[in-house]
Amino acid sequence: MTAITQIWDSLTDEFSNLEVITEPSQVAKLSLDYFHFSPILEAQLKDKRALLVVRPTTEAEVIQVAKTCVKYQVPLTIRGAGTGNYGQCIPLEGGVVLDTTKMNQIRWIKPGTACVEPGVKMASFDKKAREIGWELRMAPSTYRTATIGGFIGGGSVGMGSINYGQLRDRGNLNALRVITLEDDPQVIELRGDDVQKVNHAYGTNGIITELEIPLAPAYPWAELIVIFDDFLTAAKFGQALSDSDGIVKKMVSIHAWPIPSYFTALQHYLPSGKSCALLMICEYDLEAFSDLVHEYKGEITYNKTATEASKGTSILEFTWNHTTLHARSVDSNLTYLQTFYFSLERVEQMYHYFADEVMIHLEFLKFGGKPIPAGLQLVRFTTEERLKEIIRYHEEHGAGIANPHTYIMEDGGRKVIDPIQLAFKQKVDPNGLMNPGKMRAWLKR
Amino acid sequence: MTAITQIWDSLTDEFSNLEVITEPSQVAKLSLDYFHFSPILEAQLKDKRALLVVRPTTEAEVIQVAKTCVKYQVPLTIRGAGTGNYGQCIPLEGGVVLDTTKMNQIRWIKPGTACVEPGVKMASFDKKAREIGWELRMAPSTYRTATIGGFIGGGSVGMGSINYGQLRDRGNLNALRVITLEDDPQVIELRGDDVQKVNHAYGTNGIITELEIPLAPAYPWAELIVIFDDFLTAAKFGQALSDSDGIVKKMVSIHAWPIPSYFTALQHYLPSGKSCALLMICEYDLEAFSDLVHEYKGEITYNKTATEASKGTSILEFTWNHTTLHARSVDSNLTYLQTFYFSLERVEQMYHYFADEVMIHLEFLKFGGKPIPAGLQLVRFTTEERLKEIIRYHEEHGAGIANPHTYIMEDGGRKVIDPIQLAFKQKVDPNGLMNPGKMRAWLKR
Repeated sequence: MTAITQIWDSLTDEFSNLEVITEPSQVAKLSLDYFHFSPILEAQLKDKRALLVVRPTTEAEVIQVAKTCVKYQVPLTIRGAGTGNYGQCIPLEGGVVLDTTKMNQIRWIKPGTACVEPGVKMASFDKKAREIGWELRMAPSTYRTATIGGFIGGGSVGMGSINYGQLRDRGNLNALRVITLEDDPQVIELRGDDVQKVNHAYGTNGIITELEIPLAPAYPWAELIVIFDDFLTAAKFGQALSDSDGIVKKMVSIHAWPIPSYFTALQHYLPSGKSCALLMICEYDLEAFSDLVHEYKGEITYNKTATEASKGTSILEFTWNHTTLHARSVDSNLTYLQTFYFSLERVEQMYHYFADEVMIHLEFLKFGGKPIPAGLQLVRFTTEERLKEIIRYHEEHGAGIANPHTYIMEDGGRKVIDPIQLAFKQKVDPNGLMNPGKMRAWLKR
Repeated sequence: MTAITQIWDSLTDEFSNLEVITEPSQVAKLSLDYFHFSPILEAQLKDKRALLVVRPTTEAEVIQVAKTCVKYQVPLTIRGAGTGNYGQCIPLEGGVVLDTTKMNQIRWIKPGTACVEPGVKMASFDKKAREIGWELRMAPSTYRTATIGGFIGGGSVGMGSINYGQLRDRGNLNALRVITLEDDPQVIELRGDDVQKVNHAYGTNGIITELEIPLAPAYPWAELIVIFDDFLTAAKFGQALSDSDGIVKKMVSIHAWPIPSYFTALQHYLPSGKSCALLMICEYDLEAFSDLVHEYKGEITYNKTATEASKGTSILEFTWNHTTLHARSVDSNLTYLQTFYFSLERVEQMYHYFADEVMIHLEFLKFGGKPIPAGLQLVRFTTEERLKEIIRYHEEHGAGIANPHTYIMEDGGRKVIDPIQLAFKQKVDPNGLMNPGKMRAWLKR
């Protein structure tokens, strides 16, 4: 305890000019994320705590934090809004959590491109960007609270992915500025392909202090719900809409009954027994869209213009992992998986094979140019062993699972160790202080 | 001859308030298109002539022309700028040619949508639309002279198809207003899926007097040439670029050596023996683009900003069927095919099988959501029999050929008779006066 007390004293002393949070309930809150969607992670992570949280406001302050952590060899974990689901920002070995939310300046927004600090919130960014006709290319369902830096550090897809694919796809992140964890921290600027050294690295590879991001043209996105008698028709409709090159859309989210029953606030639009599509469609293309709905014998039960949609709760907040949030608020035994089905045939097979145990929730996205069904299916959790069996069955039948029940970066979506990220880590964090325990490549080196 | 003279007198009398062209060389010019790219069509169509050409300026004048043609049972063929290649607007049975180029009013342009008369030229439309940040979703290489109505009547794909697919894809044409060929011509408005009754019908199904079209956001399109040591690498690069969801583009046009040798004006950028890519890429994405070029070991030899590109000849005018135009200006024995290869494997097979006899020119486009290689390959013409053999070989090996050596609508791209278009024709042109000889469904009914 003496060592901890000494470090505590040293850190609070070194950080005396910074905003430091030490109040235990605040530290607890800022040490966690939405890991509890997973019963496996819940058990592993719920007690993890930072020693303290520091909230720098400038790059100079970030450098000061970096230097101090190296000086005292204290672990450093970077955090945005903490809306991740795999403990990306949970400090396994305590130490300092650096909360980026006060680094929230938009440096500039130009047509097609913007430069921001990591703590800029996505929805508030879009509000500014839309003034000149642009918006983020993609964003998670936690759009209102999530930070841009957090999404790059721990996210991978979201609304907009039906157009732009994954964050890791070339062109979806222009440049990053990162601070190293060296005795004398350096500022490194990464551009083009080099951004992959830090993209989706859970904050293990330097502290991002600035991001240059590409934008998308801001259409007026109508929000719609379409209902279908059966799930497989809804899924086929989702694929057809995704494949319709003449209909501009931003989100295609399909839910097998009984998932719609969990969307309490939308019950008026979701009759019992029906599967549904939650959609964001360009207002200019609604006539063509309604012809497609007609072809698939769907029924539009909810249709808000972009202006109307901007006033209430966005339909976005029932999709992606917000679906899981709503479902778990009704039944806390539910958990989820993240799956690249790649084809409707595989969706159909899994739908029949698992029946009610795995309720299918699809999110369509572009994968190497093609729209594919991915999903965050809801799983009725029984045991860890059974969950592993379900994952194994999917993988043995050609689906790709980005396992959300592990906090190890490579065991989630990536699967393989990335030698480029490892080499970069050796350079920028030679002592392995950044978010220790998350990068298998580093643990196994 | 007396009958013809009588009709001539009646028509010129009825059209006395209209612009009528009767001067033989003018009539000859306005009776033809670029059919001569095909030696087969050259022989079949070169002598076809209208009796006279009429150039209405308003819908009321169009109705007058329609009524007159019905009254005297004279064939009526509609024409835009005559930039088609399959004799779409060549009057097989003489009669009246209706030239739409004076119906060139833009009714309105709003974000995402515009309403135009059929004779509006595409490039001049875009100049206006860009003032509010929008442009046409797709356009042919004859963009500078082609009319919007002509493109809808006789075209199917073009630059922009890598984003929006084909004209016939739902959402790429909002609405049409057409005049029927009845004793008392009616005005019919078609919206949504109903536009397919007239879309790509070669002007056999009513006279289009107004079109409502969807628009695309206007990016600054840089124009680039990238060269490669071998064609197959260039083709793979084309597919990879088309599949790169994070890189916004408008055109991906790939040319096997020796096709680049035909581009006289671009020789400085096209070293002997190299295959090339002619590209339109969003300026904001050029950094990611150059990383992709690097991955495929390409070399950028030409790189014009959107502003620079807008001043000289656009690279567009070396792509699509302008490629054939340039090649034929060097070697008039060359002709072409139009092919959906669907996969690079098939491109490779055809490349090796036909060697120098069929020089591969690819244009990538979206087909049901997926970017596929299509092409307008150059063929060293010997005999009609051999040309048919080449087509047959492609079809037997899974390629789709939109035969440009026939003026019959269904024998070109569509292959099958469209019962909806036939039923619509029976309603709007019960006497079969519109562009007779072009619709197999009508001939065989």
